[in-house]
Amino acid sequence: MNKNSSNIMALTPNTSNKRETVCIFGTGDFGRALGHKMIQSGYPVVYGSRSTQISNLIPKDAEVLSHAEAAQKAAIIIIAIQRQHYNFLIPLAEILHGKVLVDISNNLKLNQYPESNAEYLAQLLPGSRVVKAFNTVSAWALQSGTLDASRQVFVCGDDVEAKQMVMNIVRALGLTPLDKGSLLAAQEIENYPLQLFPMWKFPIFLSLGLTAFFFFYCLALDVIYTYIYEKKNFSFFIAITIPNRVCPVMALILLALVYLPGIFAAIIQLYRGTKYRRFPDWLDKWMLCRKQLGLIALAFASLHVVFSLVSPMRAFVSWRTGKGIISQALNNKTEPLNNTNAWISDSYLALGILGFFLFVLLGITSLPSVSNNVNWREFRFVQSKLGYLALILCTAHTLVYGGKWFLSPSAYKWYLPNIYMLSLVVPCAVLVVKFVLIFPCVDRPLTQIRQGWERNPKHSE
Amino acid sequence: MNKNSSNIMALTPNTSNKRETVCIFGTGDFGRALGHKMIQSGYPVVYGSRSTQISNLIPKDAEVLSHAEAAQKAAIIIIAIQRQHYNFLIPLAEILHGKVLVDISNNLKLNQYPESNAEYLAQLLPGSRVVKAFNTVSAWALQSGTLDASRQVFVCGDDVEAKQMVMNIVRALGLTPLDKGSLLAAQEIENYPLQLFPMWKFPIFLSLGLTAFFFFYCLALDVIYTYIYEKKNFSFFIAITIPNRVCPVMALILLALVYLPGIFAAIIQLYRGTKYRRFPDWLDKWMLCRKQLGLIALAFASLHVVFSLVSPMRAFVSWRTGKGIISQALNNKTEPLNNTNAWISDSYLALGILGFFLFVLLGITSLPSVSNNVNWREFRFVQSKLGYLALILCTAHTLVYGGKWFLSPSAYKWYLPNIYMLSLVVPCAVLVVKFVLIFPCVDRPLTQIRQGWERNPKHSE
Amino acid sequence: MNKNSSNIMALTPNTSNKRETVCIFGTGDFGRALGHKMIQSGYPVVYGSRSTQISNLIPKDAEVLSHAEAAQKAAIIIIAIQRQHYNFLIPLAEILHGKVLVDISNNLKLNQYPESNAEYLAQLLPGSRVVKAFNTVSAWALQSGTLDASRQVFVCGDDVEAKQMVMNIVRALGLTPLDKGSLLAAQEIENYPLQLFPMWKFPIFLSLGLTAFFFFYCLALDVIYTYIYEKKNFSFFIAITIPNRVCPVMALILLALVYLPGIFAAIIQLYRGTKYRRFPDWLDKWMLCRKQLGLIALAFASLHVVFSLVSPMRAFVSWRTGKGIISQALNNKTEPLNNTNAWISDSYLALGILGFFLFVLLGITSLPSVSNNVNWREFRFVQSKLGYLALILCTAHTLVYGGKWFLSPSAYKWYLPNIYMLSLVVPCAVLVVKFVLIFPCVDRPLTQIRQGWERNPKHSE
Repeated sequence: MNKNSSNIMALTPNTSNKRETVCIFGTGDFGRALGHKMIQSGYPVVYGSRSTQISNLIPKDAEVLSHAEAAQKAAIIIIAIQRQHYNFLIPLAEILHGKVLVDISNNLKLNQYPESNAEYLAQLLPGSRVVKAFNTVSAWALQSGTLDASRQVFVCGDDVEAKQMVMNIVRALGLTPLDKGSLLAAQEIENYPLQLFPMWKFPIFLSLGLTAFFFFYCLALDVIYTYIYEKKNFSFFIAITIPNRVCPVMALILLALVYLPGIFAAIIQLYRGTKYRRFPDWLDKWMLCRKQLGLIALAFASLHVVFSLVSPMRAFVSWRTGKGIISQALNNKTEPLNNTNAWISDSYLALGILGFFLFVLLGITSLPSVSNNVNWREFRFVQSKLGYLALILCTAHTLVYGGKWFLSPSAYKWYLPNIYMLSLVVPCAVLVVKFVLIFPCVDRPLTQIRQGWERNPKHSE
Repeated sequence: MNKNSSNIMALTPNTSNKRETVCIFGTGDFGRALGHKMIQSGYPVVYGSRSTQISNLIPKDAEVLSHAEAAQKAAIIIIAIQRQHYNFLIPLAEILHGKVLVDISNNLKLNQYPESNAEYLAQLLPGSRVVKAFNTVSAWALQSGTLDASRQVFVCGDDVEAKQMVMNIVRALGLTPLDKGSLLAAQEIENYPLQLFPMWKFPIFLSLGLTAFFFFYCLALDVIYTYIYEKKNFSFFIAITIPNRVCPVMALILLALVYLPGIFAAIIQLYRGTKYRRFPDWLDKWMLCRKQLGLIALAFASLHVVFSLVSPMRAFVSWRTGKGIISQALNNKTEPLNNTNAWISDSYLALGILGFFLFVLLGITSLPSVSNNVNWREFRFVQSKLGYLALILCTAHTLVYGGKWFLSPSAYKWYLPNIYMLSLVVPCAVLVVKFVLIFPCVDRPLTQIRQGWERNPKHSE
Repeated sequence: MNKNSSNIMALTPNTSNKRETVCIFGTGDFGRALGHKMIQSGYPVVYGSRSTQISNLIPKDAEVLSHAEAAQKAAIIIIAIQRQHYNFLIPLAEILHGKVLVDISNNLKLNQYPESNAEYLAQLLPGSRVVKAFNTVSAWALQSGTLDASRQVFVCGDDVEAKQMVMNIVRALGLTPLDKGSLLAAQEIENYPLQLFPMWKFPIFLSLGLTAFFFFYCLALDVIYTYIYEKKNFSFFIAITIPNRVCPVMALILLALVYLPGIFAAIIQLYRGTKYRRFPDWLDKWMLCRKQLGLIALAFASLHVVFSLVSPMRAFVSWRTGKGIISQALNNKTEPLNNTNAWISDSYLALGILGFFLFVLLGITSLPSVSNNVNWREFRFVQSKLGYLALILCTAHTLVYGGKWFLSPSAYKWYLPNIYMLSLVVPCAVLVVKFVLIFPCVDRPLTQIRQGWERNPKHSE
């Protein structure tokens, strides 16, 4: 009680006398952890176990009985045993009739069985009222009270009253129940704790691969080439200079890759003349991870901003600045302000700032709580209109900054192009094709197709 | 099925055999898109159509029957036809009796009809159980699977069981149902997709107008005046220097405008001696868009921060710095550190940083998910106490930075004040009046009034 | 009506004729404010009052009757009176039988009474259907329409139908009802508006204390020492230099304090050989405020970043830079690039940037809407793996930056260590112990213990 009272978030009514007895089948780790927590919250707990001999591991205020006896004592029975052993419940069907059975099991793999564990349990015991709950809570977190992430407990079940009873227990334990509907949702709930950023895998591996490629490309051209041909040791470029070259390149390419699948989709639809045929699989997958690609692009862009902003604090930069000024002073002359240079430097900085600003705006609107508060029109406006504007600004930023490199022969060390040029290929292609697509003669049929019109109705048969 | 399985977020149980037949009235774009999606998710779909002749556009696994025949085959009927044609359902009233009718319609204008479409449908067919759903989902998004924004499906209806059935379908399609209560909520749900940032319109137009004004004001004073009278071409100021003058001015003015209506409200209440009379309309509207004004102010402040931070990277700034150092070197002397300058420069930077920090904190607490997690006292503490502190710090930042301009005649080009001075008018006025309002002799009656006391009870009759 | 229609978010159906009469017991401030709002939304309102003489304060469209008469006119009765006066309702028990009673009361202290007000009301009038609602809404906000924070109305009650009726009213007033379950939740709902950042108190006071200590420590060593022994006035260091020394120290120490309790917990579990015994109270409390500690650490880190980035704009820094360059120019020589310095400067900047980047990522995932969207495995991955990586990077950043100070005697002014050294104690200790804990010979038994194994089962008896 002591511990719980320190947790102001999990205030539980102290009217323990009201609580109904809860039965737990199974004395494994999770069964014990849940029992401890329930006893703390004032529930009388009775364990159903094969050996009714009292184990030391079981909370000492709990009773241990045979399964049948324990089940008779409570209206709610928590099934803390594994799916493989559900069969042993069949002989108890009569006792369990009408009782609320809480399925808390998890699987080891996604979609391991054709039906969810909870649905399987409901099939085995058609007279019982099965509720799925607690499977997303970790036993360790329950025990230690460190429930930062997983206060949410997904609950589903076909019987509304049974669900209500389970949700009341969830609340009494200081957790937040979330009703996911009928038992059909059990499969989704069971898959939930098995996922580790499923939508992020492809974007992250793609980014890592590209980053490694560009890093070594820059290393070769900027450090190794300089060392071989100019005998200068610029190895410290590895820390900031090269990352600050790779980051903007990655940000621009990934941002372009966010908009590329939309371009492909439009072309495919124009070519097919219908929207009622499925896109190729790779395009579908690509479209589904656009948000993740965009957020990784934003991460690279943010790193680029910070890497750039620290540059005046770098020893190398202050040395280079000082050298320039000293050589002017020693030559006894002051160079006048080069107006073109001032224009170029100011405008690429301004373009970059505005592009980054829009980029951050896109990132904020993709926060779940913000995107749930905007409707479809608003989301499309931000993600499509402002997104393209960000892409245009960032491409322009790169063009203005790196434009001078295109014609300079020194940019082609070992006959390889500078990475600025490589970074511009995808975004420029996207922008050019998009520019073509918004011409009325292309846009009109595309809009018609997206509203359901078909060029060759035969095709969809 | 292939496509769906690639979308791990939208896992649907594969137990298709359980699904109940769904009937769709209407073979328009949305009806077809929904039918496709339902067939993919394992629902047998039957279309009710005037011409039972099978159209090529209809998903090939779906049956097409007359309205009456189709309705008899299913317990749930999706009404994918427009409100104007709802009349034709009246002859079917007997067949539709007890059936769940899902109204998915939208209007073209906000509050187009006195009652919502769903309520109208319920009036036409009093024996049916009408549920509003799916109107916020775009057909195109449903078709293409790109449901980033709109996984949420608002559902409302008077019959709890009917609503539950519809919410189960929503879940099976991989979407998230959100119960909005009884059919009374239908009007709100129908208005929802028609809005494009309704609360943002006024703040955005105001900001655009003021920004344009200040931009041209600065352009005139900083570029044109300098060009005419000093023959210097500083046209590149357009890219960074002028935006970085306009942004802080806009941020400060908009932040003050967030707190100004509260000041007006207090004065009006003090004058009237009661809180039970309505504020003027313009004040009500103003108060309702304070959050938006604050967020736009934060956007300007962020731009100001980044514009300022890049300044050492500008060609113009490094040229100016170099020139200063070279002239000292050529004169063979080193200027000693000016302690006053060091104090002024450090303190306005520190004030600006702290003000911006509080400003960002205010922005974070206004994120929906954060503000839903704080209670009224906490929200008031942050938005009012910390908000005023941010305003004080930002005003002080501007005063310390721009203080020297007030007395310098060079700041009055063409007899116009520098925009620093203009920017200080509103915030200083707000702070002065607020300072008066917290005096006990003013604060006490105000608190009483806000707790329900009235000076002249006659007034409220 | 005029005012309401300006608030597009709170669109209420204008079909006023349908609304059922609502009765309000009590004519205090909140009762009146709620009555006003309900009349605006089209509800006929009747007040129950001891003196049926019409008061001027009551909305003029409302009827005022005796309690018994008023109660008979409506199915829903809002109890806007204080808990102490609930007794007077007992004689009305028969009239109130079957009616929906809405308890809107709040207490003055947390857990003031053994049971919540709503449960007390339900005990007094067992025949009525009690629903808790509206207690988190402020009367002033209701009156003025400025409901930015508290659109959410927590509703709980044992009768589902009664709850539904109240939630419909909540919606009609333009607010968002949130069903918190049965009446058991009333205590939590009543405590809610009384809390002012309860979990933040300890972390904030700790931070303020430490900040003050480090500030004066730096002030003594950097300003006073320099003034006494070197006769230099560096008082302006108070504005930026010293804050920028305190902020990173605080960020690093607080970040280490986030991970320290986990280390203690592991050691205690290893020592005890079981996880089934409660941690000491201080450790429990500490673990529960780790998120808050982490967010304050992030705030300090962000301030450190901005304070560092503005440094090139400081008058002192440009003076110092200029002096260095001029002295080189006057000596007619250019120092060559010091490669070691370049490496050190670039690597501590890069380490700091990456550490801060991960730190921000941790902050974003702790936003409620983001952490609700990740499961337990994902949350642990981010908060534990990435968190430790951030701690390692930030510690390395400090070590590389401040490493030179350890051996320099000038760093020990007044025989006191520089604060860089102080700041490294806790993080280094945490990292060293954590490093020991991940050795297999230590990690294996710890993992077993966390999965429920016990070394001395006797202990738990």
